[in-house]
Amino acid sequence: MIRFESDYLEGALPEVMEALQRTNLEQTPGYGEDPHCENAARLIREKCAAPEAKVHFLVGGTQANFTVIAAALRPHQAVIAAETGHIAAHETGAVEATGHKVIALPSPDGKLRAEQISACVEAHWADATHEHQPQPAMVYISQPTENGTVYSLAELEAISAACREKGLILFVDGARLGAALACSDVGLPDLARLTDVFYIGGTKLGALFGEAVVITAPALAKDFRYIIKQRGGMFAKGRLLGVMFETLMTDGLYERTGEREVALALKLRAAFEEKGWPLLYDSPSNQQFPIVPDAALEKLAAKYSFSDTLRTDSAHRAVRFCTSWATRPENVDELIADIKAL
Amino acid sequence: MIRFESDYLEGALPEVMEALQRTNLEQTPGYGEDPHCENAARLIREKCAAPEAKVHFLVGGTQANFTVIAAALRPHQAVIAAETGHIAAHETGAVEATGHKVIALPSPDGKLRAEQISACVEAHWADATHEHQPQPAMVYISQPTENGTVYSLAELEAISAACREKGLILFVDGARLGAALACSDVGLPDLARLTDVFYIGGTKLGALFGEAVVITAPALAKDFRYIIKQRGGMFAKGRLLGVMFETLMTDGLYERTGEREVALALKLRAAFEEKGWPLLYDSPSNQQFPIVPDAALEKLAAKYSFSDTLRTDSAHRAVRFCTSWATRPENVDELIADIKAL
Amino acid sequence: MIRFESDYLEGALPEVMEALQRTNLEQTPGYGEDPHCENAARLIREKCAAPEAKVHFLVGGTQANFTVIAAALRPHQAVIAAETGHIAAHETGAVEATGHKVIALPSPDGKLRAEQISACVEAHWADATHEHQPQPAMVYISQPTENGTVYSLAELEAISAACREKGLILFVDGARLGAALACSDVGLPDLARLTDVFYIGGTKLGALFGEAVVITAPALAKDFRYIIKQRGGMFAKGRLLGVMFETLMTDGLYERTGEREVALALKLRAAFEEKGWPLLYDSPSNQQFPIVPDAALEKLAAKYSFSDTLRTDSAHRAVRFCTSWATRPENVDELIADIKAL
Amino acid sequence: MIRFESDYLEGALPEVMEALQRTNLEQTPGYGEDPHCENAARLIREKCAAPEAKVHFLVGGTQANFTVIAAALRPHQAVIAAETGHIAAHETGAVEATGHKVIALPSPDGKLRAEQISACVEAHWADATHEHQPQPAMVYISQPTENGTVYSLAELEAISAACREKGLILFVDGARLGAALACSDVGLPDLARLTDVFYIGGTKLGALFGEAVVITAPALAKDFRYIIKQRGGMFAKGRLLGVMFETLMTDGLYERTGEREVALALKLRAAFEEKGWPLLYDSPSNQQFPIVPDAALEKLAAKYSFSDTLRTDSAHRAVRFCTSWATRPENVDELIADIKAL
Repeated sequence: MIRFESDYLEGALPEVMEALQRTNLEQTPGYGEDPHCENAARLIREKCAAPEAKVHFLVGGTQANFTVIAAALRPHQAVIAAETGHIAAHETGAVEATGHKVIALPSPDGKLRAEQISACVEAHWADATHEHQPQPAMVYISQPTENGTVYSLAELEAISAACREKGLILFVDGARLGAALACSDVGLPDLARLTDVFYIGGTKLGALFGEAVVITAPALAKDFRYIIKQRGGMFAKGRLLGVMFETLMTDGLYERTGEREVALALKLRAAFEEKGWPLLYDSPSNQQFPIVPDAALEKLAAKYSFSDTLRTDSAHRAVRFCTSWATRPENVDELIADIKAL
Repeated sequence: MIRFESDYLEGALPEVMEALQRTNLEQTPGYGEDPHCENAARLIREKCAAPEAKVHFLVGGTQANFTVIAAALRPHQAVIAAETGHIAAHETGAVEATGHKVIALPSPDGKLRAEQISACVEAHWADATHEHQPQPAMVYISQPTENGTVYSLAELEAISAACREKGLILFVDGARLGAALACSDVGLPDLARLTDVFYIGGTKLGALFGEAVVITAPALAKDFRYIIKQRGGMFAKGRLLGVMFETLMTDGLYERTGEREVALALKLRAAFEEKGWPLLYDSPSNQQFPIVPDAALEKLAAKYSFSDTLRTDSAHRAVRFCTSWATRPENVDELIADIKAL
Repeated sequence: MIRFESDYLEGALPEVMEALQRTNLEQTPGYGEDPHCENAARLIREKCAAPEAKVHFLVGGTQANFTVIAAALRPHQAVIAAETGHIAAHETGAVEATGHKVIALPSPDGKLRAEQISACVEAHWADATHEHQPQPAMVYISQPTENGTVYSLAELEAISAACREKGLILFVDGARLGAALACSDVGLPDLARLTDVFYIGGTKLGALFGEAVVITAPALAKDFRYIIKQRGGMFAKGRLLGVMFETLMTDGLYERTGEREVALALKLRAAFEEKGWPLLYDSPSNQQFPIVPDAALEKLAAKYSFSDTLRTDSAHRAVRFCTSWATRPENVDELIADIKAL
Repeated sequence: MIRFESDYLEGALPEVMEALQRTNLEQTPGYGEDPHCENAARLIREKCAAPEAKVHFLVGGTQANFTVIAAALRPHQAVIAAETGHIAAHETGAVEATGHKVIALPSPDGKLRAEQISACVEAHWADATHEHQPQPAMVYISQPTENGTVYSLAELEAISAACREKGLILFVDGARLGAALACSDVGLPDLARLTDVFYIGGTKLGALFGEAVVITAPALAKDFRYIIKQRGGMFAKGRLLGVMFETLMTDGLYERTGEREVALALKLRAAFEEKGWPLLYDSPSNQQFPIVPDAALEKLAAKYSFSDTLRTDSAHRAVRFCTSWATRPENVDELIADIKAL
């Protein structure tokens, strides 16, 4: 079985494994207060052109999401997300478990629009009984989204402006940020400038695990480590995260990893289009969603794994193919050849 | 600096690193549903003589603690712990953040007594206004405790009997369980037989990270994976935990690791006693708490790290020395020589 | 100003005020453990033909809702409601504040259909990643709904059957239950027979305040008073609730109160229809939602209050007129005359 | 049976009942946005010499406590209380249910000392691992305490100064504040000046129910109504609270009520002392705690109710006698005569 069902099927990049091995017997203090974390944070601040930003390393995405949201909101406040957003759809109500409602807005492609956000907030304040509803106070978006789509710089600037006008915190989930860096005009300094908090995903970009949370809003940074600890994200051997992120942030490894996986995904996309399979979402990143005849899917499934997205009609399904740092080019070529031969 | 301040200063056992390297490019499904997790769970069930037990792998101890407690208790219920217990003293109110009170009972040595537990529960029910107080419904103990002490089988049996008589869930935090296995008469089958849920710690016993939660009570096992996900403990590359635990659970590696660290700690203990330094707690495990004259501490601190526990009088402090899987015997010998020479 | 904007504009029925005055200097134990609460509970069990039911008196509807839900659900479970349901739309995220997601289903009239519920639950279990989503475990409906509509006995039986087939708890919010009793074929014994828990609203039916929660499912009844206390609903002078409910439950006062307010509302409805004003919802109960030309609304607003529901087009708004136990027939007649004269 | 077991055995003062009856058919908007609430708030601001304070009316004490605490604290923060404080001992973990730890400090008489508070906070910050512990951020005290004792102005000023020095919010539970006003040198303007938030209890001072929360700290006042609603404290017929508090706050009724009940309690105290019964606490307020021989208690119990506090030795118990607005002087005289005759 050649697997394309997700981008977390393997372990870590060779460079990352090598760094873990090399530092294995070093003795360092725990809980992220070690020289590797310090160095990784410095490298991230530099890449983000954000010398004042606070950088914290968490183990996973769901954990990063609810930790940031719990730290940021007062009890009556809610977070706006696309209805397909990870916090709305795939975290078992983790945000609600911290006490906050997720206000899920419709989206055809996984992206929120600045006008949607403004309209949602204006409707809240215009309602005479707004005190009887959770107060929208934060916007959560993903770059790229769950659908593989990415925000352009113009779109992100518009969202950022809307948030600042309305007094909302802007939070960007970058679980697959490396892919977006390779296919959008939004760079790390843009994220640091336009958001209050975002994270640079490691789990899906060549680390064994780990997300680097970058906080630029001082109010949000205050006491953040207490909340990491309280929510189970304070890693005893925190230096592992430091070691992995300093590796990823050195010599452009993180960016190259994103570029590589996106290039392979776009080869797949071209093959789908050539075959006449429409795409459910217009994704420029490492997740591709072709709409495939059932008969073709059945044949492919004997040799390849992919994930099921939705049935589009009685004879077709949309499915997801992911590439990652570990995807082998020869496997992509083999899949393309098999598609052509169908 | 030679470090004895904690037992999570280094990475992982060579066998563990080798296994991670060896399996690095395997493709497996995520979220703990892979053959390595399945195999590790099987090995654990065998060692525990608990063929029906459910085994889940979580990333860290605080996370394991609050996930188990949140899964087990109804909203009005509370968990009993020693006032020095990790959930009472060192988790930033993580249990309270799930909505539950920790009923902290005094303990001279970190251990709870069966009679204490019974008395606490009886006092609750005897109070005419007990509905105005959280209902004790679970007991949390650690093996070994934060103070290095361990429960004997007789003690654990008494606690288990008290819990069953009173209808309480018994939960054992085994973050350092490998050390306890090496110095108490309580084995894994005893834990499985006498408790409702416990965990086998990996973070402090040679894994990079990870705790194996063993659930023997069926009511507690139901839907546990939902709660892991909701609380941030569902690891995307869950197979890493499987790989590490199948390594630890093979050929007695886990047990040997505990024996080795305990043997080194007892050498240290003997040196402290020979020097005439009293021990704050009578610990047979890998944490030792000598009470040391300030002048001696000052000299040692130039070369060794240890952690501060408390000031016992104006000229002495109790400090903690830990050994681990990574402690080098020659460093222990050097420290002992330096103590003798003081 | 003659007010029709809500059904909680005045104090309490004369009979209720008289009973409070008559019992004012009685000395009773607190917290609902007094003879009046006992007697009121007995009367309710009789009316419900539910001799085993547990009855608890809470102060208000939001409190009753989140207390019942918090008592019933495990942390990963969610409650299904219509998107217009009170818990979804008008409680400031009170249910989320207890940690649970509200799964909001669309509804044209405020009612859920049995098939919707079944489909939602089946979709959950059919999803391979259902552990990454909150588990639907309870259904919340209101009788009557926020839109004034009511469930027929056949509809409620279908919902009850769907819930029992799928293992869901069925909870009915009866904040305005008196109105529904007057205009549907669902009686109190039906509610007791078909649901797991429901409440009989007092605040909107002639009491100063108070809701009588009737629990027929034994698992839900266990330890419920602890949770009332924890969530702020344990009333010190609980006997006030007992006194008010024993008054309402005597000599058919509760039922008569509902009949009276519904009769007045239906007079209003006939006048709206005669005037050619369409109704936003087909409500047989004490809330009526005519769609009114702006010019007419402007004139009415000088003399009458009503609440705004939504703008239906550029020249019309849907508004809500409520009747209550305190609505004076002559005020209804005056409003009808003024409408005719427009 | 003549009852002295608590101060919430009866309904409300005649003046309060009369005001409720008089306003019963008034039509007012709901949720505390009516002229009576406005007027009551104005009267309270005047009495407190706090023209900028925000005043909110809640139904009960537990609700007021957790609503204020939830509104004030970030997730990692904790509230300091005496171990006998109501939030620590008698609210079924309501504060923990909002996610926050109660740091319970020992107290011989129910009062906290300024030095205790300072020491607790200093110990937190001095601990190198303070991020692993909940951060003390608020102090909760009661005036009078559960033990009947009261803070002097000097004591309250010292506590206030300590809180301001350490950056803690000071919150005073005044469930029985009327009693304290009658027997301490702390007035309402002192409370407004020295605390961030406090409440004026109505339930135990002649109202049917209700607590008036006075917020002087602007950060705490922001969005407070959302949180009241979310936590179940937004009363539909909020004007009932307004009517009751404007009655209590007019013509010195509240103060007179406190004076009257304290005077009766002090008569009882004198009788206990004359009889040679020691007092468990040196209470100048409406709760008295004599230590009584078992034989005497047994005789008294046939005619009088009181509440049990604790067994002090094999032949004596400490019990509590309460007076209230409704206590009849002739009943106090009868009790005193019966004590003398024992």
